[in-house]
Amino acid sequence: MKVKAGIVGATGYAGAELVRILSSHPGVELTALSSQSYGGKAFCEVYPHLYKHVLQHCRELDIPALARECDIVFTALPHGYAVPVAREVLGGGKKLVDLGADFRFKDPAVYEQWYKVGHEAPELLEQAVYGLSEINREEIKTASLVGNPGCYPTSVILGLAPLLHKRLIDTGTVVADSKSGVSGAGRGLSLGTHFSEVNENFRAYNVGVHRHTPEMEQELGAMAGTSMAISFTPHLTPMNRGILSTVYAKLNRDMTMEQVMSVYEEFYRSHYFVRLQPPGVLPQTKAVTGSNHCDVAPVVDPRTGRVVVISAIDNLVKGAAGQAVQNMNLMFGLPETTGLDRPGLYP
Amino acid sequence: MKVKAGIVGATGYAGAELVRILSSHPGVELTALSSQSYGGKAFCEVYPHLYKHVLQHCRELDIPALARECDIVFTALPHGYAVPVAREVLGGGKKLVDLGADFRFKDPAVYEQWYKVGHEAPELLEQAVYGLSEINREEIKTASLVGNPGCYPTSVILGLAPLLHKRLIDTGTVVADSKSGVSGAGRGLSLGTHFSEVNENFRAYNVGVHRHTPEMEQELGAMAGTSMAISFTPHLTPMNRGILSTVYAKLNRDMTMEQVMSVYEEFYRSHYFVRLQPPGVLPQTKAVTGSNHCDVAPVVDPRTGRVVVISAIDNLVKGAAGQAVQNMNLMFGLPETTGLDRPGLYP
Amino acid sequence: MKVKAGIVGATGYAGAELVRILSSHPGVELTALSSQSYGGKAFCEVYPHLYKHVLQHCRELDIPALARECDIVFTALPHGYAVPVAREVLGGGKKLVDLGADFRFKDPAVYEQWYKVGHEAPELLEQAVYGLSEINREEIKTASLVGNPGCYPTSVILGLAPLLHKRLIDTGTVVADSKSGVSGAGRGLSLGTHFSEVNENFRAYNVGVHRHTPEMEQELGAMAGTSMAISFTPHLTPMNRGILSTVYAKLNRDMTMEQVMSVYEEFYRSHYFVRLQPPGVLPQTKAVTGSNHCDVAPVVDPRTGRVVVISAIDNLVKGAAGQAVQNMNLMFGLPETTGLDRPGLYP
Amino acid sequence: MKVKAGIVGATGYAGAELVRILSSHPGVELTALSSQSYGGKAFCEVYPHLYKHVLQHCRELDIPALARECDIVFTALPHGYAVPVAREVLGGGKKLVDLGADFRFKDPAVYEQWYKVGHEAPELLEQAVYGLSEINREEIKTASLVGNPGCYPTSVILGLAPLLHKRLIDTGTVVADSKSGVSGAGRGLSLGTHFSEVNENFRAYNVGVHRHTPEMEQELGAMAGTSMAISFTPHLTPMNRGILSTVYAKLNRDMTMEQVMSVYEEFYRSHYFVRLQPPGVLPQTKAVTGSNHCDVAPVVDPRTGRVVVISAIDNLVKGAAGQAVQNMNLMFGLPETTGLDRPGLYP
Repeated sequence: MKVKAGIVGATGYAGAELVRILSSHPGVELTALSSQSYGGKAFCEVYPHLYKHVLQHCRELDIPALARECDIVFTALPHGYAVPVAREVLGGGKKLVDLGADFRFKDPAVYEQWYKVGHEAPELLEQAVYGLSEINREEIKTASLVGNPGCYPTSVILGLAPLLHKRLIDTGTVVADSKSGVSGAGRGLSLGTHFSEVNENFRAYNVGVHRHTPEMEQELGAMAGTSMAISFTPHLTPMNRGILSTVYAKLNRDMTMEQVMSVYEEFYRSHYFVRLQPPGVLPQTKAVTGSNHCDVAPVVDPRTGRVVVISAIDNLVKGAAGQAVQNMNLMFGLPETTGLDRPGLYP
Repeated sequence: MKVKAGIVGATGYAGAELVRILSSHPGVELTALSSQSYGGKAFCEVYPHLYKHVLQHCRELDIPALARECDIVFTALPHGYAVPVAREVLGGGKKLVDLGADFRFKDPAVYEQWYKVGHEAPELLEQAVYGLSEINREEIKTASLVGNPGCYPTSVILGLAPLLHKRLIDTGTVVADSKSGVSGAGRGLSLGTHFSEVNENFRAYNVGVHRHTPEMEQELGAMAGTSMAISFTPHLTPMNRGILSTVYAKLNRDMTMEQVMSVYEEFYRSHYFVRLQPPGVLPQTKAVTGSNHCDVAPVVDPRTGRVVVISAIDNLVKGAAGQAVQNMNLMFGLPETTGLDRPGLYP
Repeated sequence: MKVKAGIVGATGYAGAELVRILSSHPGVELTALSSQSYGGKAFCEVYPHLYKHVLQHCRELDIPALARECDIVFTALPHGYAVPVAREVLGGGKKLVDLGADFRFKDPAVYEQWYKVGHEAPELLEQAVYGLSEINREEIKTASLVGNPGCYPTSVILGLAPLLHKRLIDTGTVVADSKSGVSGAGRGLSLGTHFSEVNENFRAYNVGVHRHTPEMEQELGAMAGTSMAISFTPHLTPMNRGILSTVYAKLNRDMTMEQVMSVYEEFYRSHYFVRLQPPGVLPQTKAVTGSNHCDVAPVVDPRTGRVVVISAIDNLVKGAAGQAVQNMNLMFGLPETTGLDRPGLYP
Repeated sequence: MKVKAGIVGATGYAGAELVRILSSHPGVELTALSSQSYGGKAFCEVYPHLYKHVLQHCRELDIPALARECDIVFTALPHGYAVPVAREVLGGGKKLVDLGADFRFKDPAVYEQWYKVGHEAPELLEQAVYGLSEINREEIKTASLVGNPGCYPTSVILGLAPLLHKRLIDTGTVVADSKSGVSGAGRGLSLGTHFSEVNENFRAYNVGVHRHTPEMEQELGAMAGTSMAISFTPHLTPMNRGILSTVYAKLNRDMTMEQVMSVYEEFYRSHYFVRLQPPGVLPQTKAVTGSNHCDVAPVVDPRTGRVVVISAIDNLVKGAAGQAVQNMNLMFGLPETTGLDRPGLYP
């Protein structure tokens, strides 16, 4: 019997990517697509690539109906909006994966400090699992509520995890410099995502104050066994999909490239979606476009005593919808790669 | 039992797209990948998106081995090079789909006039079928040798076919203005495909003399029941994938939008991959990126008495590798959509 | 003494391009920049490339002040809005160049038919000159009111003018297929100009019904000495600047490439900004980016009896602001190329 | 009397940008354009934007003739090739600006270590001045031989100089993460600059081993009064022009944004081409496209005790040809901004 899935916020880019992936997922039935902006419209009128593939219409949000009809609900909403959905869905004994920020933090105070609003369901935070499958696979399997990681944190945490897990770097020296395609900013209109302003342009934004910072610090710090403060700078790149993160840290002791590589190999041995690159190959966003992979390569720089880790993901797949489906697969006992095993597009 | 497929010219863009599609085709076993430039290399070293998806190595071309080991061979080669492969493969009782120009023409003189070389196997031309499935589905089913259509002709012919079939346009007035992404020019290096020269640039090329012209004229003329000479202008667009063709012709008599539309609906009723657009919607290349669809919309312009047909394809899928697999499916009695039924990527 | 220039609608892309060009025009003093959206803001806060180059602040529109302080006013506004400005400016004995559609038509009925509103100053239409300098140079020199051509018409008319002037083509066979960069759609936000929707996409729009059509027909028809109806299709190209038009027409009689070329050479002999391409070279938008040139090349296709003319402009320069300055130069007796003589950027 | 200028390597992107700038420089006469690849061809056949602007033909390299005819020679060549030109030009009492790496290093051993070849004119290194005008203006004024800075070092050094000059940062903590447009890789063909490989892609390259690293370390170290080793990672961005550098360093003591800003203001007070951004504004490459500006903004991050400096240049202008002309202006006693004072293009 297929898992009945509902999506709230189905017409944003992350929501539409969920629709695309789930529409050819062999174990899922797309049960409800909810959209604030396009209620009543055929979904394929909003996303023409799905014409003849997705026949459903968008509906207005009806939380009780969702909780009743669906086995799992995905929320792809601005922060704050997933809380009432989660309450009802979990109350009805169903599961929820939130692609927003509402269930990513263990400490509501951190959420409140960075998002400038109180958290309305701190009791739900306690049962929520941070949905980075490569880190928390076992907890996710038994979770009912998963906070799907942000796109930037996915790339940065997967890049650094093996080193922190083994306590090999100086936690005070981490600099994460990330570059994102524009789809990460969503489908909402703004001058900053207007074609002529972005094309042939490259810029940083939210230097030192981006809301994905505390999420990284929480997860990296948990692995390191200490609180961490990192420098994180996001940048906007004139392309649609992809995040490349370049992460810098001082090694605690001299290590060779081979020694570092074997740490990564051990850590990711059983994780299909992380592809450690062969020697001499660096990740690039095009190699993961449309797929759920995270490509990773650490580089040791003996001149400076630093390791520089490069990681690449498709921000809408491993950085959002693909990872959410990966979590769903785990939560329902399906093979982790179901519906996610096709390679991406190149060029 | 799976169909054993070999690809000659596997490391060009069309070849690599064949590898991508066939690597997740449930009825196919990728048996041999041949490459002149990368013989001996792991395929995924040449195309990083297929890392961990395709494990084969490229081999040097060994035509007898191919004919022996494969049920079907795809050739994605410069014109002229497919002939010896076809001879041997067909001689061994196997099948071949050529993605180049060697088997597209009924009349070797036309080939010779436009390609400036003699055709070395006119006897094979006689048994070759032009592999535009929506036009020649039945012939393809029984063919051993298929000339896969060019990317531009695919978009133009599918755009005009219903009107010509019904003799509704003046065949002397056809203008086909096509715009292609750069992957259509292949992976070979040239100043004309150097990033800084193409990006932020738009240009026409081969005005009036592009080699896809006679291919269109042959097929359009066959449908019209008369010889045709059309104006065709290809353009290079700063994007990777996609062809949009805008085709103009005088209607033979006044027709309403509804009348024209019903001609198209009837013609394409049983053809899954052609998506006639809903009223008011125009095709765009992004809606077909990564999929085997051809999106089509005719527009009647009563002011000028012309019909303007817009059609969009992914040049590497419906314009090359996807169509080749569609042909293979037909040739082996598989459902036409096998391995091609997933929607494309957006945005 | 410098010409005092005011710009109404200075913070749109065409307005800002006027500011850029005029800020280094040796014969002009930028006197007033008016903006509905940014009144009170420093201009360089709105356009960071002009930081330290343009010190003015935007002001709210004050028409009487403009008419008093300026020798010439440029209006870059949605249609309809230039009329009251023109009335006052002309009433005060000053000059005006409108970059919108308000003063391009000789016949107010045509304006009303295509723009779906009445024209509020038909009496001004009578004295307005269509500001395509290569066609109407002498009239522009003595004009007080100039309707600056649309971007598409500039490219199409300059492409066809020599042939029509000599009555060499069949006026019923003209097809103009134009491709524009996205800046032509302005700085206003819309889903159709959202980065992720445009990038890696190519599409047609307003097929057969674009408002630049009657403008072309008026000017082409005037040259041909007959009324004309043409097919015009605009397309959106994933780049910032540039229009390439591909224009098709049947020749009235057999002509060689050399004969056609000599017609163009004679026609454009005294026109600096039109660059007829050397034999074998086709225009491309990158060759005119940032310059006021229109690059033109006719191609004779003896197979079809058609001539195919390719023309390229920067839509914001020759297609808008540069042409407006060229008109201003003529209106004030300055050399036509003043402030416009620098080459563009490449790559 | 005009300065007679020659360019060796005129048909690369940096060379062509020199031609563009010098062709409208009021104090310069373009005397000789030398090109290995295009000797004998009209320059505008190689670069169509300069059609009718530059009438010269390319010539084969003739060093004695250059030394005789020119007052200054610009070399834009692969490393090693400028040495013989410099010998002859300086021997003839003329001046030379090298846009390559041959005259950037004070210590030939550093050059040899990173470029893997011996330096053939260590005696010339002694008299060469590193041509970053904002740092070495006075030395440049009297120099005959200038090593024009690399594009990345220009952006990084101008970003950090004020802080190092005042000894405000921990020199062991510097991380420079730079993102470049593709024109920085030149016009030479390679798979890495093939359109379809770069477009919709973002990648790092030469991590920890890029040859611009020692150049930065030399200049930054000189300012800091100590030897320095920095982490530098270059990235390739899918756009034509522009470099954005994001530079991280630990502050030696707590400083406010205002305190840091006043350090920058004092340092750059007399330097027209560095534009410190207004509060809240971050540099972006589009704001400097086509201009010689370097836009800079430091951001203090009190959470981590780091300063993050963002700087943006056009790699072909301030990062190459524009800076070379700025140096020439200084060397010949012309106003520093001559020929460089026009704003760039936007959007």
